[in-house]
Amino acid sequence: MRFAVYQPPQATQKPVPILYFLSGLSCTEENFMVKAGVQRLAAEYGLILVTPDTSPRNTGIAGEDDDWDFGTGAGFYVDATEEPWRKNYQMYSYVVQELPALITANFPTQPEKQGIFGHSMGGHGALVCAMRNPELYKSVSAFAPITAPMRCPWGQKAFSGYLGKNQESWRDYDASELVKKVGYHSSILIDQGTADKFLAEQLMPKAFEQACADVSQPLNLRYQEGYDHSYYFIASFIEDHIRHHAIA
Amino acid sequence: MRFAVYQPPQATQKPVPILYFLSGLSCTEENFMVKAGVQRLAAEYGLILVTPDTSPRNTGIAGEDDDWDFGTGAGFYVDATEEPWRKNYQMYSYVVQELPALITANFPTQPEKQGIFGHSMGGHGALVCAMRNPELYKSVSAFAPITAPMRCPWGQKAFSGYLGKNQESWRDYDASELVKKVGYHSSILIDQGTADKFLAEQLMPKAFEQACADVSQPLNLRYQEGYDHSYYFIASFIEDHIRHHAIA
Repeated sequence: MRFAVYQPPQATQKPVPILYFLSGLSCTEENFMVKAGVQRLAAEYGLILVTPDTSPRNTGIAGEDDDWDFGTGAGFYVDATEEPWRKNYQMYSYVVQELPALITANFPTQPEKQGIFGHSMGGHGALVCAMRNPELYKSVSAFAPITAPMRCPWGQKAFSGYLGKNQESWRDYDASELVKKVGYHSSILIDQGTADKFLAEQLMPKAFEQACADVSQPLNLRYQEGYDHSYYFIASFIEDHIRHHAIA
Repeated sequence: MRFAVYQPPQATQKPVPILYFLSGLSCTEENFMVKAGVQRLAAEYGLILVTPDTSPRNTGIAGEDDDWDFGTGAGFYVDATEEPWRKNYQMYSYVVQELPALITANFPTQPEKQGIFGHSMGGHGALVCAMRNPELYKSVSAFAPITAPMRCPWGQKAFSGYLGKNQESWRDYDASELVKKVGYHSSILIDQGTADKFLAEQLMPKAFEQACADVSQPLNLRYQEGYDHSYYFIASFIEDHIRHHAIA
């Protein structure tokens, strides 16, 4: 597994907080580092940034590269239980346990100060990782996240393939289900572009907003007029997200 | 020819100044827009950004794609006089005349307020375009520019191929020669990383610094400790360059 790390100048002097970014479908560990304009802010606030890849690669599993929204580049941050994926596709455990252990062992970090955020499929991943492990993550935010994967085509395809037909096992990877079950200890920041072509069919922020309202979960859901699903959208609002995590 | 344009919010209300960015070897019109984190600043200062491609493409010239530092992606911002390049490879005229005419005819600009900057081969191009047309460009800056192309391998290869063996014709495309001949009406800003692997052999900022000193040309040459030749270097200092052009 490959990942990218940005170390701020402060890390040469002392341990610093860690912020994980989970990318969306088809991305690698590079996209966010190259396109988001985030290093300036991580340097200012003194955060180590870590971006994992979005799936295992070159596993030899038949058909792993056939679809852009399943298999390679589309791990969906779940621990697969179905063959032939379950040996390699353990992205949830990787993000929550294996990768942080690697990072804290090899970089000057404050492991008790972790935040997590992401985009699209990675926004889904960030919400799920944070809500299921509130003691590990002191803050969470997302850009245009898939908020109700059990109800959208991307999520249904991925969960069927990785988790099987029993939808009970899907619930722990669905932010709109999870928030009603466990909530989160602090306010969740979400930015969503109104010109995002995936908004209604795949992302469904209204479903998550309703679920948060049902359990009085603090949510700062901001609709950004005219913005699409691209990294230009991320770059436009990245500063607010970095600050959200830095002050948490 | 393809080019990229960023229009700031101010352009919906009134004509705004224009800033051209010329990219380096192997880039297209996309690299700078995707990697430099510049839109935030162009929006703040109210500048239209325009990035041309670095050469004609798919011209059908035999061998145009053979080298990464000559032909496709490597137009060097000269008007070629040699066959088989001279019909298509007229990048100097394109940048100075054809493209600005297109831009001012189609976007809400203040054509009397143009600036130009660039990176590496594009830093060379920006310096040459500005010094030869001081009435067209009120400001110029560069990241890690090729400052003495007549004396470096990249420049010698390109000028031999596009301009022929007579080095007299090269002088009007060499910043270190040009500054001694014509100078420039305002201070030139250059950032150069000290860990740039092309510094000594290809970029030669000392040659340009000496030439500027010889004719008392104001130059703000900043060596940035530990920075390389990448877009991360550009993103790190882009704000100073945007300000340099905005206040000019």
